[in-house]
Amino acid sequence: MTTFVRPAVAAMSPYVPGEQPQGAGYVKLNTNENPYPPSPRVLDAIHAAVGSDLRLYPDPVAGALRHRAAAVYGVDADAILVGNGSDELLSLLVRAIVAKGARVAYPVPTYSLYDTLVGIEEGVVVNEPYPADFSLPMGLAALDARLTFICNPNSPSGVAVSLDEIRSLAAAAKGVVVVDEAYVDFAASSALSLVREFENVVVLRTFSKSFSLAGIRVGLAIGPKPLIEDIGRIKDSYNVDRLSLVAAEAALDDYDWMRVNVEKIKRTRGVLTAALRERGFAVLDSSANFVLARRPGLDQGETYRQLKARRVLVRHFATPSLADALRITVGTDEEVLALLDALDEIELK
Amino acid sequence: MTTFVRPAVAAMSPYVPGEQPQGAGYVKLNTNENPYPPSPRVLDAIHAAVGSDLRLYPDPVAGALRHRAAAVYGVDADAILVGNGSDELLSLLVRAIVAKGARVAYPVPTYSLYDTLVGIEEGVVVNEPYPADFSLPMGLAALDARLTFICNPNSPSGVAVSLDEIRSLAAAAKGVVVVDEAYVDFAASSALSLVREFENVVVLRTFSKSFSLAGIRVGLAIGPKPLIEDIGRIKDSYNVDRLSLVAAEAALDDYDWMRVNVEKIKRTRGVLTAALRERGFAVLDSSANFVLARRPGLDQGETYRQLKARRVLVRHFATPSLADALRITVGTDEEVLALLDALDEIELK
Repeated sequence: MTTFVRPAVAAMSPYVPGEQPQGAGYVKLNTNENPYPPSPRVLDAIHAAVGSDLRLYPDPVAGALRHRAAAVYGVDADAILVGNGSDELLSLLVRAIVAKGARVAYPVPTYSLYDTLVGIEEGVVVNEPYPADFSLPMGLAALDARLTFICNPNSPSGVAVSLDEIRSLAAAAKGVVVVDEAYVDFAASSALSLVREFENVVVLRTFSKSFSLAGIRVGLAIGPKPLIEDIGRIKDSYNVDRLSLVAAEAALDDYDWMRVNVEKIKRTRGVLTAALRERGFAVLDSSANFVLARRPGLDQGETYRQLKARRVLVRHFATPSLADALRITVGTDEEVLALLDALDEIELK
Repeated sequence: MTTFVRPAVAAMSPYVPGEQPQGAGYVKLNTNENPYPPSPRVLDAIHAAVGSDLRLYPDPVAGALRHRAAAVYGVDADAILVGNGSDELLSLLVRAIVAKGARVAYPVPTYSLYDTLVGIEEGVVVNEPYPADFSLPMGLAALDARLTFICNPNSPSGVAVSLDEIRSLAAAAKGVVVVDEAYVDFAASSALSLVREFENVVVLRTFSKSFSLAGIRVGLAIGPKPLIEDIGRIKDSYNVDRLSLVAAEAALDDYDWMRVNVEKIKRTRGVLTAALRERGFAVLDSSANFVLARRPGLDQGETYRQLKARRVLVRHFATPSLADALRITVGTDEEVLALLDALDEIELK
């Protein structure tokens, strides 16, 4: 820690991402990656773009990708901002909207990056705990926040709240409501229609999960044009590189590839949920590509470590309210079997 | 403009990047890209990385690239932070260091993105004009800034200040001094040795210019470990994608490819400089891959437009103090001939 940075930065604990072992050999069920490869059309498109043009800057406004995404999602191209992953878009939203001392609301537990981003801007986090069934807490709008995040389906619970609940929140909120739909392709419905209904709703999408492209870092913010334009003012000109742009475009061109993988994952999710329940875990029905498995009141840190010793990585959070839970990504059927076999070797707490 | 974002964001003019025509057909000498392609080894490394692993997140700490860069630049891996282009690193530095109202100093004219980044954080820009020879203005340290930027070689002048001048500034400055060395491979010397001498000096490098990789977005911040660690606290976990990481690593592995291209560009720079002087332009000796060509007191907007009509793109800045100048990237010999032929067709103001 130095005295050169702002005290708020010097004092902060950075967001801790899930482990990313760079060697192979793990059954990796800890960071919600898709177990299936990206579309062959994506790989072809990248290969075709690898050439001398890499000497040139990418398109700063990502025109081709925005037009492709506009057609797929039924919105105007001007309603879309392309980011270096939806993490960058979250960061841009917070930086554009949150002045020092401004209130930012979200139900918890949820994606802990929100805490980090608000902390950097010295905003004030106002949380409302999710009830046990993870429905949207009443009273979020009454928190009078400049910015409200809803991760939907939520991480780490996997539970999705209904479009009606989000619509009510958007209508009552004075500030901006961001619906972080990183996992929405695994769920039943999206809030995308709300960006035409409200001037204060932004929906985030990513290519990291359903499209099997966590490695290329592309996300989309979709919202009313004036707000998207305002957020875009502060983005780096060349925030998404040439290869990522063509990869995301090709992924949209092979939308069916994504749908087929999503259906496989949803089927495996059912198998995993049932098997965990059989083993004594409490598991809420998930609308995402992971499940939250609880042993109520019993810390699962040891289970996490025992699984890791068996080369199976799952996520255990440091948060006290999540100590009795493991977040487990839905892998292939084989990966899920490996997890269950490893669990069966462990004396569970 | 909406009422949802901070007033400082709503009011700001975003940084305007140079034109990036997405079709071909221009002699593109406006954004200082390298006219030569990246190393074949870079292309091979990217092809080899295009596969199912793109479903996985990249290494959040860019370990392999940092270790490779540490060996090449003679620093510790812990002294390096990898960014999504050096633009992201500039943004991280400003966000980490500059509180609302904090002073940020730099001599002008220079890279105008600094203005944008400080504006977003509501910092206070304190400028010192460069003298006509673009040596470092005395008195920068006396401006008592939390953060001082030196673009060296400077854009748009192309002039490099000496290591001794930067050392004196670093010794006298109380805040952080960032030496933005985007163009340093085209110059005689680097300030890299200062990061071991001072606890407040950060040097920025990029793969966009000398390594012919503007399209992949990778930059490096090199500095004292405690400061690098502090800046790293606020970066997005997965800020650089898998393909960009392997591309940058491979570029360092073929350092000679870069050196050969740099030598070609320096030779062409000499030809271009002489030819522009013959045509009545005042051109300072450049240490970068571009030259600033002036017709003192005569607005060159029309020259820019006439060149563009002839499919030759150069950069003309809106800034009044640069109205009489064109910044021209050093292309291939053929591109420079095309520029000169086009210039010869124009009645110069």
